[in-house]
Amino acid sequence: MSSCIFLRTMRAFFRKSCNLEHQGSYIASLNIVSNTLHIGPAIQIMTKPKEQQVIIIGAGIAGLKAASTLYANGIKNCLVIEARDRIGGRLLTVKGYKGDKYDLGAGWHHDTLMNPLFLEEAEAMKKDSKKRFVFEDSQFIYIDDQRGRIDHDPDMSLEFVDAEIDKFTGLEFYQSLDVKDCSFYHIILKYLLQRRDFLTDDQIKFSAQIARYLELWHGASWDKLSAKDTYFDHQGRNALVTNFDSVVNRIGDTFPKDWIRLNTEVKAIERDGKNVLIKLSSGEEYICQYTIVTIPQSVLQLSLQLPDESNTKGRIDFKPPLNPQIQEAFKKIHFGGLGKVVFEFDKCTWSNESSRIFTLAHSQENFVEDVRKAETWEGLIDNLKTPSSQLFENCWDFPLLFINLAKSIGRPTLIMLMQSPLSNYIESIGNDKQKVYEFFQPVLDKVMTTLQSNKVINGLSANPTEAETNSPILKNLLVTNWNNDPYSRGAYSACFAGDDALEMIIAMSNGQDSRIRFAGEHTIMDGAGAVHGSWESGRREGEYILEHLKDH
Amino acid sequence: MSSCIFLRTMRAFFRKSCNLEHQGSYIASLNIVSNTLHIGPAIQIMTKPKEQQVIIIGAGIAGLKAASTLYANGIKNCLVIEARDRIGGRLLTVKGYKGDKYDLGAGWHHDTLMNPLFLEEAEAMKKDSKKRFVFEDSQFIYIDDQRGRIDHDPDMSLEFVDAEIDKFTGLEFYQSLDVKDCSFYHIILKYLLQRRDFLTDDQIKFSAQIARYLELWHGASWDKLSAKDTYFDHQGRNALVTNFDSVVNRIGDTFPKDWIRLNTEVKAIERDGKNVLIKLSSGEEYICQYTIVTIPQSVLQLSLQLPDESNTKGRIDFKPPLNPQIQEAFKKIHFGGLGKVVFEFDKCTWSNESSRIFTLAHSQENFVEDVRKAETWEGLIDNLKTPSSQLFENCWDFPLLFINLAKSIGRPTLIMLMQSPLSNYIESIGNDKQKVYEFFQPVLDKVMTTLQSNKVINGLSANPTEAETNSPILKNLLVTNWNNDPYSRGAYSACFAGDDALEMIIAMSNGQDSRIRFAGEHTIMDGAGAVHGSWESGRREGEYILEHLKDH
Repeated sequence: MSSCIFLRTMRAFFRKSCNLEHQGSYIASLNIVSNTLHIGPAIQIMTKPKEQQVIIIGAGIAGLKAASTLYANGIKNCLVIEARDRIGGRLLTVKGYKGDKYDLGAGWHHDTLMNPLFLEEAEAMKKDSKKRFVFEDSQFIYIDDQRGRIDHDPDMSLEFVDAEIDKFTGLEFYQSLDVKDCSFYHIILKYLLQRRDFLTDDQIKFSAQIARYLELWHGASWDKLSAKDTYFDHQGRNALVTNFDSVVNRIGDTFPKDWIRLNTEVKAIERDGKNVLIKLSSGEEYICQYTIVTIPQSVLQLSLQLPDESNTKGRIDFKPPLNPQIQEAFKKIHFGGLGKVVFEFDKCTWSNESSRIFTLAHSQENFVEDVRKAETWEGLIDNLKTPSSQLFENCWDFPLLFINLAKSIGRPTLIMLMQSPLSNYIESIGNDKQKVYEFFQPVLDKVMTTLQSNKVINGLSANPTEAETNSPILKNLLVTNWNNDPYSRGAYSACFAGDDALEMIIAMSNGQDSRIRFAGEHTIMDGAGAVHGSWESGRREGEYILEHLKDH
Repeated sequence: MSSCIFLRTMRAFFRKSCNLEHQGSYIASLNIVSNTLHIGPAIQIMTKPKEQQVIIIGAGIAGLKAASTLYANGIKNCLVIEARDRIGGRLLTVKGYKGDKYDLGAGWHHDTLMNPLFLEEAEAMKKDSKKRFVFEDSQFIYIDDQRGRIDHDPDMSLEFVDAEIDKFTGLEFYQSLDVKDCSFYHIILKYLLQRRDFLTDDQIKFSAQIARYLELWHGASWDKLSAKDTYFDHQGRNALVTNFDSVVNRIGDTFPKDWIRLNTEVKAIERDGKNVLIKLSSGEEYICQYTIVTIPQSVLQLSLQLPDESNTKGRIDFKPPLNPQIQEAFKKIHFGGLGKVVFEFDKCTWSNESSRIFTLAHSQENFVEDVRKAETWEGLIDNLKTPSSQLFENCWDFPLLFINLAKSIGRPTLIMLMQSPLSNYIESIGNDKQKVYEFFQPVLDKVMTTLQSNKVINGLSANPTEAETNSPILKNLLVTNWNNDPYSRGAYSACFAGDDALEMIIAMSNGQDSRIRFAGEHTIMDGAGAVHGSWESGRREGEYILEHLKDH
């Protein structure tokens, strides 16, 4: 198979059936990019590896920032190899039915008091006055299926109980050293058991479900998440990005276009004396002094498996294998599966009081009674039914977070966040928009009626009659694909019970060795799991190479 | 002057003109208590000091808990000497016009996740089912003079900006070591200046004033308070105590009544070989093995002054003088002046949506413009007018916090918290209820009209006409006296700009020496400034003596 046929096959594979926006002009200019990237006949590739000073694997924001840093500091030979047909990685801006842009990947600048990428964007905004983000933190609206709105209820004060669970969890683990971790679900039960004398029945019932909004930060369910790690501090307000394509393109434009090679899968990374040999799936080879591997933690994890195991697409074979510190670190970290469904309506018929609408999952049967009568924590855990359904029969089995764009940017759209394992299921049926809508219809209708709107009219296939025009008509929905996509295999790093993210962060920061480096959201402490952390890690590794080159 | 005449004089001095509730039966049984405490003729006192194993100075909660700890562990000879005519110290429960109880001193169990006194009270409540506290954290209602309610305003999101100022302050001081402290006022200006591009005019104007609710935690104004120290974490929800007299009496009942000697001022503490000599103002003397000094930090500070300086009532002369560590520590700590005014109405005519109503002070003129145009932090500070009025002409010059008892316990009363220097002024006119009411009338009326009530009818002296019965009639008001009271001289320990409370806490924990010990809210880390901290410090010193007695 010639490399050209391979490239076409890859392109066809990656071209999404859904209506993705092309990121900048990279996909359109693919052939040009390929041509300038020295792709010759296969026979030549087999005989002599091409030389590059640095090869960056992955054109997500970490890889792009690394390339940008190297170029700005005089590096002339660098190649960014990207398996997908686009740059941006887990930053993905797509277009809705009227051309409005949505971020299916990361959507916010977090920690804006300590976020250097945010400050850079703010500076850029000063220059061209283009709106790049909007602060849209707002008070949560909590909606329970039976009780309706339960936020800011003066009799329940659930916001204060929720804050107390956060504090309780912190005290539990950080008052003494080496306290054994447990699941987030179990620590909530421990709190409720210990403090039940000071809680009403409603507080017991609802605070347990409200705490689960953190599932939508981590992308995993409470029975999986680490109690130690689930709560975290925000370093400043959050800013919704409008949209991340402009960030990706701005950074992508800071170094030569021909540094980027799309649709190219790396198969192996081998040390070759002082150099590193990069082998592509196409059979081509590159030899370089340094490589920065920015593939997601979930994909890097495949390197620990045997190459012939099933479902190892994207696996990179390391020779020598990933070092022992990295292998150990993988025992203490997991990967979340945050997904999104974008519900686009024809008009906004609902209240734009808040941009955050959280719908509570149904409680387990007899939950309050079980908490009241339990004699021990273990007894309570045993007595309660399993907390998360694997059946995917009822949308009310899962807590869900709706970002109300009507409030934040005046657009009649709700972006729903969902967590594993629900996101895996929904993404698996993501091509059947009708089926996805039907699954969420009960919770969508409850959101609408609670926010003073009529229920949703399904306008996915047919145009509704005129009599229904006071109702919000669902015109389109968009579903993410991060869990099924072999080059993401989920969303981002997450701590499950017993994990310790620090080990992975340290292992990744140290690198495989002095020549094979790592960057990405899973490799850094400040901004871990976030865009600016990934960006910063790319800068870090770029600077590492520049320093190292000076020394040698 | 015989001791009996002296005692009568003291008693007359301490008997409050205001309608104080008698704490337990201590005042009533004063003569009996005195008699059993070996008070003989003055001539005998002059010649031979009476012996006690332990003398505790101060019958506040620290002193009472220390006595309780000693008695429970077999100590037989102990005397608690109290200058006032009551026990309780800065816990003071008084009665309103219909006999309802109010706490003019501390009023809450704070940090209920880590508060052992709270847990003890909760256990006591289980036994007798008497209501001892109520959780009453609720969402702040923010009221601005011009704009009315500005809490939960979806366009301003002031709650989020407020949280960001908190976080900004933390990052400012705790990201690097030894960052120089500044005032709370100055750090707010720094935040506004650095982040003004991300804040609307309204956010700049109101967030500065909203942050000032912390003045009502510390009892001092923002231009005095330490930026480093003003924000703090809550370890769980707050519980309003109903009322603290039951706590005081419960602990007071755990050791013999004749251990307590009221109306007795200590004049000097001298080391006498291994023992300690306690000299009273009456001329009497006690000799003991250990003493625990639980007088407020503000009173202890007088010991650093010369005895003949003015306004040194309550001063204790230490021989040898307070040790150098303690003397140094006083350079790094101050004392706040939190005060309260209790407004009792005939009926509740206002909304009981929340128990926390915060009225914002007027902003400085051109505040937003000055922030927008400032080029440097120092320039902004210079350009703005002085932030806190010393004139006491307008109640809107000060941020004020109203605790709405209608919400928390269903009583038509507002308890207003005020800070120094306002509290000093108001307490100085505290006997003139009419004048106090007139000062706060504008803000009271604004609270009422904002909370869907008619304005207040003054019923302090006359009964209002029947036509006015839809309005809340002010029947009574109670004012604290902590700042004027020579035995408190303010409320509790507070950090001003540049202070470091840790030095005092360490110095106090170490004691003057192995025999002269300290307890109280200013001597402990966990629960510093709070009732449970004071209580815990009393237990600590009781246990210290028990341990020490074992060793020697």
